[in-house]
Amino acid sequence: MSGALRIGIAGIGTVGAGALAILRDHAAMIEARAGQRLEVVAVSMRDPNKPRSVDLSGLKLVPHPEALADEPLDVVVELMGGHEGAAHQLVTRALTRGKHVVSANKALIAHHGMALAALAETHDRVLAFEAAVAGGIPIIAAIRSGLAANRLTRVAGILNGTCNYILSKMLEADADFAEVLAEAGKLGYLEADPALDIDGIDAGHKVSILAALAFGTVPDFAGVKLGGIREVTLRDMHYARDFGYRIKLLGIAERRDEALLQRVEPCLVPVSSPLASVDGAYNAVEVEGDAVGRVVFEGRGAGAGPTGSAVVADLIAIARGDRYPPFTLPTGQLARARALDAAAREGCYYLRLSLKDEPGVLAEFTREFAAQHISVKSIVQREIAEDGSAQVVVVTHHTNEAAMQRVVKSIAALPCTTRTPVLLRIHA
Amino acid sequence: MSGALRIGIAGIGTVGAGALAILRDHAAMIEARAGQRLEVVAVSMRDPNKPRSVDLSGLKLVPHPEALADEPLDVVVELMGGHEGAAHQLVTRALTRGKHVVSANKALIAHHGMALAALAETHDRVLAFEAAVAGGIPIIAAIRSGLAANRLTRVAGILNGTCNYILSKMLEADADFAEVLAEAGKLGYLEADPALDIDGIDAGHKVSILAALAFGTVPDFAGVKLGGIREVTLRDMHYARDFGYRIKLLGIAERRDEALLQRVEPCLVPVSSPLASVDGAYNAVEVEGDAVGRVVFEGRGAGAGPTGSAVVADLIAIARGDRYPPFTLPTGQLARARALDAAAREGCYYLRLSLKDEPGVLAEFTREFAAQHISVKSIVQREIAEDGSAQVVVVTHHTNEAAMQRVVKSIAALPCTTRTPVLLRIHA
Repeated sequence: MSGALRIGIAGIGTVGAGALAILRDHAAMIEARAGQRLEVVAVSMRDPNKPRSVDLSGLKLVPHPEALADEPLDVVVELMGGHEGAAHQLVTRALTRGKHVVSANKALIAHHGMALAALAETHDRVLAFEAAVAGGIPIIAAIRSGLAANRLTRVAGILNGTCNYILSKMLEADADFAEVLAEAGKLGYLEADPALDIDGIDAGHKVSILAALAFGTVPDFAGVKLGGIREVTLRDMHYARDFGYRIKLLGIAERRDEALLQRVEPCLVPVSSPLASVDGAYNAVEVEGDAVGRVVFEGRGAGAGPTGSAVVADLIAIARGDRYPPFTLPTGQLARARALDAAAREGCYYLRLSLKDEPGVLAEFTREFAAQHISVKSIVQREIAEDGSAQVVVVTHHTNEAAMQRVVKSIAALPCTTRTPVLLRIHA
Repeated sequence: MSGALRIGIAGIGTVGAGALAILRDHAAMIEARAGQRLEVVAVSMRDPNKPRSVDLSGLKLVPHPEALADEPLDVVVELMGGHEGAAHQLVTRALTRGKHVVSANKALIAHHGMALAALAETHDRVLAFEAAVAGGIPIIAAIRSGLAANRLTRVAGILNGTCNYILSKMLEADADFAEVLAEAGKLGYLEADPALDIDGIDAGHKVSILAALAFGTVPDFAGVKLGGIREVTLRDMHYARDFGYRIKLLGIAERRDEALLQRVEPCLVPVSSPLASVDGAYNAVEVEGDAVGRVVFEGRGAGAGPTGSAVVADLIAIARGDRYPPFTLPTGQLARARALDAAAREGCYYLRLSLKDEPGVLAEFTREFAAQHISVKSIVQREIAEDGSAQVVVVTHHTNEAAMQRVVKSIAALPCTTRTPVLLRIHA
C-alpha cells in the first residue's frame, strides 16, 4: 500500500460537491476497497466565493483550472462541462502532464473522445468517464468488462432525465409539452439552454459514447441522428397507451453487419418492457449481446449522489490499478463504421393520420399501405380533433423504414389529409 | 503483450460448453479486449464419451479434475458444481498451486468462500465467481467496482429462475404449484433434486455471496433464513394481483446499523416495481446505496450463453490484470456481522385469514390488530373457500414483524379461525 492517490477537482458544482462529500464521508471504507487512501488536495472553481454545501478548507485553491495539470497530483477530475474551452484544455494538459483523468463531461468525450483517448494512450494514463453516461448506473464498466465476452448488437436507453421527466409528467398531469416545460423551468429542472436536453443533443452525446464502447468503433457524434420531444403530443401519448405502449425518448445505437446506426428519437415502448416503467428522472439502458441476451440497467441519471458515485467509482478503479483503454480497445483498433442507412431499418411503426371525416377516406389511404406492401396490424379511428379532422391510428406489422417514409409521403399528399401524419417507431 | 492465458476447464456441461463456444467464436474480439490471447488447453469431465455440442479435439483431456491443478495453466475454471468433493478439492488445490480460479459454483462459494478467499490471498491469486450469481448479469462486478463508492444498505432480487418460472406460470396458466411443478419436471427444467431450487437453498447461496460482497462481511450461508415457494397458492397470487402486487420469491440481504438480515422468502412486490415484471427464467437484482439510490439489474439468470458470458468476463478481467479480493476486502477486514433479529424488521404485510362465515367475526379479529397497534390499510372479504370459510385479506400500514407474528398467533387461536393464516411481506 503506497501513499495516497492525490486528486484535484475542477468544478465544484452539484457533482463536484457530491463526489467530495462521498470521499469524505466514506474515507475509511473507500480506502479499504481501493487499497489506497484517496485524498483530494486541490480544487479549482469559477467563483470561489459562492456559498457551497461542502467545506473546502484545507484544500489548495487553484485559480485557473488548467493549472491543476501542473500540480503534484495523480488524478485530475474534470467536472466543468462544455466541450470547448477550459474543460478541453484542462483534460488535454492533464493527460500530457501524466495525470489520470476522470471526467463527467459527455459533450467533451463525444466531441474529442478519440483525440483524448490517443493522448491517454501515449502517456499511459487512464481516461475514465463513467459519470458521463446514465449517472449512477455503472453502464460503462458493464459494457467494457461485465459484458466483454459478447458481440453486442444494440444499446438503447432512456439517457436524458429531463426529457423523461417531461414525458412522464405530461401523461401524469394530462398536460401538453409547453405547459410541463414551463413548469420544469420554474422548478429549476432545466439547463440554461434547455435545447441541449429537449432536442436530444445530450442524449446524442451519450449514444455516441455508448456506441464506441459497445462496438469498438471511433466515437462519432456527428453521425448521431438527433431527435427531441418538442413534437410529442399528449394525443399520441394517450393513443399509444390505449394500444399498450408508452412514448419514451430513446437513444439507440445499433450494429448490423459492419454498419452502425445512432439515433435519438421518441419511440413507442411496450408497457411490458422494463423501459416503459422508467419514470421521472430515472435512466435505463438495455444492452443486447449474442451470448447474454438482453440485460437492462436502471437507476438515477443525475444528481450529486448518483453522479458523484460514478466519479468516485472511477477513482477507486484507478487506485486499484484497473487499466482499460478509454473505449475498450486501443485507439488503433477502433473501427470507423459506415452509417447504417436508416431507410434499411426494420421494425413496426405507429402512424397517426388526420383525415377529413368523409366517406371513402379509409379506402383512399389504406391503398397506400397496400402499394408499399406494408402489412397493417391494427387501424383505429379515434375521436374528431378540434379542427374537425378524424384521427386514425395505424400500427403496422414488421416492415422497413423506407417503405414507411414512402407511405407517409403519399398519404400526406392525399386530398383527404388535413395535417402532416405523425410517424413513430415501435421499440421492441 | 505476453503469451496466451492458459485455461483449463473442469466440467463440460451446459455452462462449460457455452464458455468454450464463446471463447472460440469470439477469439479475436476477446484477445483485443483482453490484451492477451485466451487459450483453453485442457479439460476434464465426468464422462468423456458423452456426445457434446462443442468440439474438444486438440484439448488435453485430464481424467481426474483435481489433476488440472498440476497442469501448466494460468487459470482453472471450475464448472462441476456441488460444494463438497471434487469441486472443493480442485479449487483448493488449484489456488494452492498458484492458479487463478474462476468458478460458477454458488454452493461452493457460499459454504467455503471464506477459506478459499484466504487461500487465494495467500497465493496472490484471483478467485472470481461472477457466474455464480444471476447468470449473465454482471452484478458482482457492479457491487465490487461500479457501486464501490456507496455504503450499501440492501440487495434484493429474483435469484432463482426456476422458482420465478413456476410462479410466473402459475398465474399465467391459472394452475396451482403442484401442476406447474410436474410440468416443469416433464420439460426438463428441474434439477435432479428440485428442493435446491424450490425450497430457496440455491437463492440462499446467492444471498450469502451478495451480502458478503455488498457489506464487506464474512459469507454466512448458515445465517440465511430460507423459504421457498411450495406454500404459495394461486389464491394468494390472485388476491395479491387485485391489490396491485405480484408474488415473487426474493432473496434479500439487508444491513441495519451493524446487523445483517439474510432471507429468502415469497414477497408481494408492487406492480410498478421493476421486479414485478421480471418473468420466466429472468433474474433481477436491486441494489440500494446511500449515494446512488436504487439501481436495478435485469437479465437471463441461467443457460449456456448468459452464464458462459459471465465466466468469460472473469477470464478477460484476469487477463487485463484486474486484481480484487474475492469479497471486495481482504479477508482480514471482513466483518462478522451479528444477525438482525427478524422480529425487528419493519414494513407492510399481507395477511390472509380463513374465518367462519358468521356475524361478529370481523370485530373479533380486528380487535387483535388494535391490540398490537397495527394500523390496517385495507381489509377485503373475498369469496367463500371450498371449505365454507370466508377469505379475508388484510394489508397493513408500516409495522414490525414481531407485532405481525403476535397478531397471526392470536388470530390463529381464535375460535372463528378455520385455517392457519397466511402471512407475506410486502417488498417496497
